[in-house]
Amino acid sequence: MTAAARESVQDPPARRNLKLVIAYDGSRYHGWQRQAAGLPTVQQQIEDVLPRILGHPVTIFGAGRTDAGVHAEGQVANLYTRNLAIPCQGLRRAINSRLSGDIAVRSITEVAEDFHASRSATGKTYRYRIHTAPLRPVGLFGQVYHFWRPLDVEAMRSAARMLVGRHDFRGFATTSDQRRTSVRTIFRCDVVEAGSELQVICQGDGFLYNMVRNIVGTLVEIGRGRWQPQQVRRILESRDRSLAGPTALPDGLSLVCVHYDG
Amino acid sequence: MTAAARESVQDPPARRNLKLVIAYDGSRYHGWQRQAAGLPTVQQQIEDVLPRILGHPVTIFGAGRTDAGVHAEGQVANLYTRNLAIPCQGLRRAINSRLSGDIAVRSITEVAEDFHASRSATGKTYRYRIHTAPLRPVGLFGQVYHFWRPLDVEAMRSAARMLVGRHDFRGFATTSDQRRTSVRTIFRCDVVEAGSELQVICQGDGFLYNMVRNIVGTLVEIGRGRWQPQQVRRILESRDRSLAGPTALPDGLSLVCVHYDG
Repeated sequence: MTAAARESVQDPPARRNLKLVIAYDGSRYHGWQRQAAGLPTVQQQIEDVLPRILGHPVTIFGAGRTDAGVHAEGQVANLYTRNLAIPCQGLRRAINSRLSGDIAVRSITEVAEDFHASRSATGKTYRYRIHTAPLRPVGLFGQVYHFWRPLDVEAMRSAARMLVGRHDFRGFATTSDQRRTSVRTIFRCDVVEAGSELQVICQGDGFLYNMVRNIVGTLVEIGRGRWQPQQVRRILESRDRSLAGPTALPDGLSLVCVHYDG
Repeated sequence: MTAAARESVQDPPARRNLKLVIAYDGSRYHGWQRQAAGLPTVQQQIEDVLPRILGHPVTIFGAGRTDAGVHAEGQVANLYTRNLAIPCQGLRRAINSRLSGDIAVRSITEVAEDFHASRSATGKTYRYRIHTAPLRPVGLFGQVYHFWRPLDVEAMRSAARMLVGRHDFRGFATTSDQRRTSVRTIFRCDVVEAGSELQVICQGDGFLYNMVRNIVGTLVEIGRGRWQPQQVRRILESRDRSLAGPTALPDGLSLVCVHYDG
């Protein structure tokens, strides 16, 4: 055995790749992504506590750039650390004890070197909560969109079904979205009644900027009777944002989970 | 019939006394009561929208001065208005449409001239929510106290039972409370398991400053095994605040309702 071969056998790996599942209440943050201006964001809050725990500066890579006021139950991020000693459970506890109560690292697991929270993702699931009871739900302030006028749930459901499949969703994207292709696949778009709430659950292989909020804004217009469900087909075919509804408030939106193969 | 008598028959009442039931998420407010410094408070938020609706400046009298971060499902206030035209339902809608989503006037009713939200009250019910699941409940940020270590619920219950009755609660009051008498009657003090929560429900004819939060702080110390339930008796007998537990966070506390005779 050559010295080099012996070395490569004995060498511990130079770094570990860690996958974090993160929940947060986005109300007090300017979205997930670190901002140049130093505004509080979820990524910045987590990155700022890591150096004292891991012993070196760290960048975390998130799967989804949630906007200001948008929440997450299962945001995923990964980070590389040269700290080979700290166990995942201990790291999770150390991070959480230093974070504010509106951010929680739910789990940390060691993953393959090539795992990337965003590039390895095969899809995401979002949930949008519409509170439909007449009384303003003060205890859910920032967590739901309060819409108390009657909604035709069946009309919303048939509109939602037309979104399922592979389509060009440009008409549902806020126009500043500059991504190359606006073709995405929606696997599931359900309108679910849950107590005093109507929830729109949307699972897809990817989403354009504001796409879920524009879908919800359109479904609400259909539910209140301004448009027929067929409006969804017109928006998809024309790819014309001006035919779709307003962008629904961020409050009701949550990134439920990020999907990966295997 | 004299002219004076005729006048008193024909005159409409000079003013109406209105009773408001109000819910709020106290997270963003410096308590109920208007502050000299102009800090945002719930009373100030409501008083500030009233002149444009009623046509004259208004002071509202609240039943309970909830502290910063404390919530309400059923705070009660009354106000006198010279506006004899506006119906209660219309007033309620007009106020709510001008308030932020974390405050809601639940009802407005016309009451007798001598009704006073605070002085007419015969009691209040508070609820304190302790979230006991291990994972930090980010969606309930500001709404609950997260205590994830094991709690002996039976010990807490037997301690809570000792609080029921007429006692001098000075040992459970924050010492800055200068009220004449510290004798109060607790009608009910229950420790209720509700899903991932332990709720302390406390009903009494009145509460000293921080009294519910000091009771909860003491019950938690008993639940975690630091003290025996009998500690409650020692605190009541000694009237010594230093024997009681820490003041629990405001987050978990909510004024559920205010009681009146009849």
